[in-house]
Amino acid sequence: MATRGPRIQAPWHLPWLFFLCSVTCVLCVSPSKVPRLGVRGPYGARNHDGEVKLQSLASSHQKFRTFYYNQTLDHFNYRPESYKTFQHRYVLSFKHWRGPNTMAPIFVYLGEESSLNDDLGYIGILSDNAARFGALQVYIEHRFYGESIPFVSREEALKDANLRGYFSSAQTLADYAEVILHIKKKYSADSSPVIVFGGSYGGMLAAWFRLKYPHVALGALASSAPVLYFDNITPSNGYYTVVTKDFKESSESCYETIKQSWFEIDKVAAKADGLSILQKKFNTCKPLEAAAELKNFLDSLFSVAAQYDRPPRYPVDLVCKGIDSAPEGSDVLDRIFSGVAAYFGKKPCYNLDAFFSAETLDGWSWQTCSELVIPIGRGSNDTMFPADPFDLKEYIEECKRTFGVPPRPHWITTYYGGHHFKEVLRRFGSNIIFSNGLRDPYSSGGVLENISDGILAVYTTKGAHCMDLLPATVGDPEWVVLQRNIEIEIINGWILKYYQDLLENSI
Amino acid sequence: MATRGPRIQAPWHLPWLFFLCSVTCVLCVSPSKVPRLGVRGPYGARNHDGEVKLQSLASSHQKFRTFYYNQTLDHFNYRPESYKTFQHRYVLSFKHWRGPNTMAPIFVYLGEESSLNDDLGYIGILSDNAARFGALQVYIEHRFYGESIPFVSREEALKDANLRGYFSSAQTLADYAEVILHIKKKYSADSSPVIVFGGSYGGMLAAWFRLKYPHVALGALASSAPVLYFDNITPSNGYYTVVTKDFKESSESCYETIKQSWFEIDKVAAKADGLSILQKKFNTCKPLEAAAELKNFLDSLFSVAAQYDRPPRYPVDLVCKGIDSAPEGSDVLDRIFSGVAAYFGKKPCYNLDAFFSAETLDGWSWQTCSELVIPIGRGSNDTMFPADPFDLKEYIEECKRTFGVPPRPHWITTYYGGHHFKEVLRRFGSNIIFSNGLRDPYSSGGVLENISDGILAVYTTKGAHCMDLLPATVGDPEWVVLQRNIEIEIINGWILKYYQDLLENSI
Repeated sequence: MATRGPRIQAPWHLPWLFFLCSVTCVLCVSPSKVPRLGVRGPYGARNHDGEVKLQSLASSHQKFRTFYYNQTLDHFNYRPESYKTFQHRYVLSFKHWRGPNTMAPIFVYLGEESSLNDDLGYIGILSDNAARFGALQVYIEHRFYGESIPFVSREEALKDANLRGYFSSAQTLADYAEVILHIKKKYSADSSPVIVFGGSYGGMLAAWFRLKYPHVALGALASSAPVLYFDNITPSNGYYTVVTKDFKESSESCYETIKQSWFEIDKVAAKADGLSILQKKFNTCKPLEAAAELKNFLDSLFSVAAQYDRPPRYPVDLVCKGIDSAPEGSDVLDRIFSGVAAYFGKKPCYNLDAFFSAETLDGWSWQTCSELVIPIGRGSNDTMFPADPFDLKEYIEECKRTFGVPPRPHWITTYYGGHHFKEVLRRFGSNIIFSNGLRDPYSSGGVLENISDGILAVYTTKGAHCMDLLPATVGDPEWVVLQRNIEIEIINGWILKYYQDLLENSI
Repeated sequence: MATRGPRIQAPWHLPWLFFLCSVTCVLCVSPSKVPRLGVRGPYGARNHDGEVKLQSLASSHQKFRTFYYNQTLDHFNYRPESYKTFQHRYVLSFKHWRGPNTMAPIFVYLGEESSLNDDLGYIGILSDNAARFGALQVYIEHRFYGESIPFVSREEALKDANLRGYFSSAQTLADYAEVILHIKKKYSADSSPVIVFGGSYGGMLAAWFRLKYPHVALGALASSAPVLYFDNITPSNGYYTVVTKDFKESSESCYETIKQSWFEIDKVAAKADGLSILQKKFNTCKPLEAAAELKNFLDSLFSVAAQYDRPPRYPVDLVCKGIDSAPEGSDVLDRIFSGVAAYFGKKPCYNLDAFFSAETLDGWSWQTCSELVIPIGRGSNDTMFPADPFDLKEYIEECKRTFGVPPRPHWITTYYGGHHFKEVLRRFGSNIIFSNGLRDPYSSGGVLENISDGILAVYTTKGAHCMDLLPATVGDPEWVVLQRNIEIEIINGWILKYYQDLLENSI
């Protein structure tokens, strides 16, 4: 999801945006159905090398085994503190693995800005294809999320200016390299080809991992990875331009209503009892302290709807149907509320903090204030939203106020590249798929054309964020089935070529 | 140079080995002729953005300009301390640059384990070819050497367990990326292709730089870079096997004499006044405290002679001629001393610490005790040297005793690769030349076969360490002229292809 929160006190109200592949599921699946694994709580105790049977959303029941690797705190320095290690969680499923003797592949899901618990049920592409390839399934958690937080609680770790300094993408990629090499050694699978998968921010990690560690991963599927949304490579209004397009395509009148609503909110808010009128109109659970709270909530709602605009709900149509079908005589704000109610269903009241877990909010706040500076903004008349240009200076100041250190807005392109992406990779690198769905606002910062025979773009015009990674279901539209098939055939080609190369070398 | 020092107290006596391209020059050129630049002392004052005219050993007089970049201490973390910056030296020559408007290339020499002062005169390949390409010449110093030491003196920096922790190859490559991008921005040279050059350890850095930062460097010439001498990819006796072969090929009797000498030294040393006999026989400047001092000195001498066995001196032949032409009646040790005297010339006494500067010794000691664990050893009868197998456990313990932290012997292959080098890079990466001379003992850990159309091996059977990087002279043998020409034509091909790609994209 992408939304830029209200500019008020709390740290998670910094300008941020999210990438999680699983938000609609967090919202749609009732908590008791959200699969959890090896966590403290009713779903299983923390358990070294323990087994937990997971009721996956994917087609098959899986036996996942949880492990903890002694991970190096700081891979790049040799200060005494660098050598500290923490417990780093990864999860394996051997169900389909044909084992090292046949050099059967290893499929690795690279965790993103959330607990691994949130991923296991949603990442269908591994479990759906493991049988065909006889693949070992590996899921690795991102440092500073879930159970992979160094030494102390999550809250303490993120408050500690020194400790949270180790919470960076380069350290994370090095973590992944160490865990994968550890697994290959542990299971004598030196010759097994490794394919990494990731979605959204995790998709960026997957693409970058193949580029930085080609000796560890043979190939990468980077789903919905906006690797070009840094350092002004992509126009800053790219994201909201796509949100707008999605709504306009769904319904012109819906689009017009939304476009008008911001002005109406301000108009009502300007009245003496304006905030209380808005609270009643939108039936919010808590009193409103500022109109910005409501506007940011709606911004998030429309953004989330567009980003995850996929079957069976198709939330953009859902919201627009709510807006368009409000009873006659409804004013603009009544209509917008009707859209909110259509999205969330009938509720006693509506919670404006409904999107994302505190864990993701807190972690992502830090990540976007240290290195992942994604300049998303919009001009005065280029989207259905009010003007809100991206202001790097203000962004930096806000991060400094919150965390005491400024972000490094050019580091991502310095370390991973991005400028002249096509020219640079045309004759360098191989075996990366950049997959996108064009209804996903983040596709505006994605790679949408083939760069070489080895670096390919696979997109669908109707697809949304990370849709290809989700478990296959019988109701899937044909175009996503096709997208997944194309991706898997490309990956199959990499693996066959790898075996062929080995054979040629050994003759 | 490769030698493993005596296992006694001082930290620089840890097992170490060197790669410097310039050792014979340090030894052969009288100090007043060693070019210096922008340093405190008679050759110029430290001077921000100052100009110093350098009497280069290369064919042309060059005007070098020295600059200092505010370099980030820690690129990979976001701890408050990470943000500190230090003055990082780089040197430019605009003499031949055709400027950004013609997209003229930028040739960058990546510094290795010494002060940049030691490099400028020796790196002829940049100055000799800048005119033809209209290239900007850039020389960047390695952090923790020369004038690029963070905050304090070299001695203080290396004593500080926290500060020296930032002295790593990954930080160094990131430094180089930042400086190159800074230069491109400063001189509006965004479209100028960058070619990086490096020799020995600097050659490894050049190859790794192209692999890790393909968006910053279009290509790399990695001269005499033993990228495969890690983690037991290369047999540990590779280095000394080549030294032995060099001597045996020069003279069978010389080889036999050396092979016998170690036993003779031990035999004399075992006598009551053995060390004083040896001191007299070898005319050492200081009394010997152990036979190991003499043996290590000879080990270094033979290793250096082999590594830098190049015209006009051809030190292996020189030493062997000394050994073989000792007066009749000379015993084995007399003959060995005759070889020493032939190498160094007639001197009042011989200094056993003659090789390398304290700066390189100290820095390299740390680098090899943190990450650059190059397992060089030898068995009991596989070389002309006494048995001295590489013992990782002992190595780690010695590093821990000296620096308080153990090395990470697998990190280099985790981060840069090395295992299955050919298979991994056959379909990944491009524009790297691995150049070697097979008389160089480090060629045993080098890349000696083409990996793909884009990753090429260019070697000469008669060449020594980094010979292709040295300034061209009229007396150069034909084969090194040919090697350099091949390398430059390959680089020319990369640049032409780059321009062609740009043209195609703009049409």
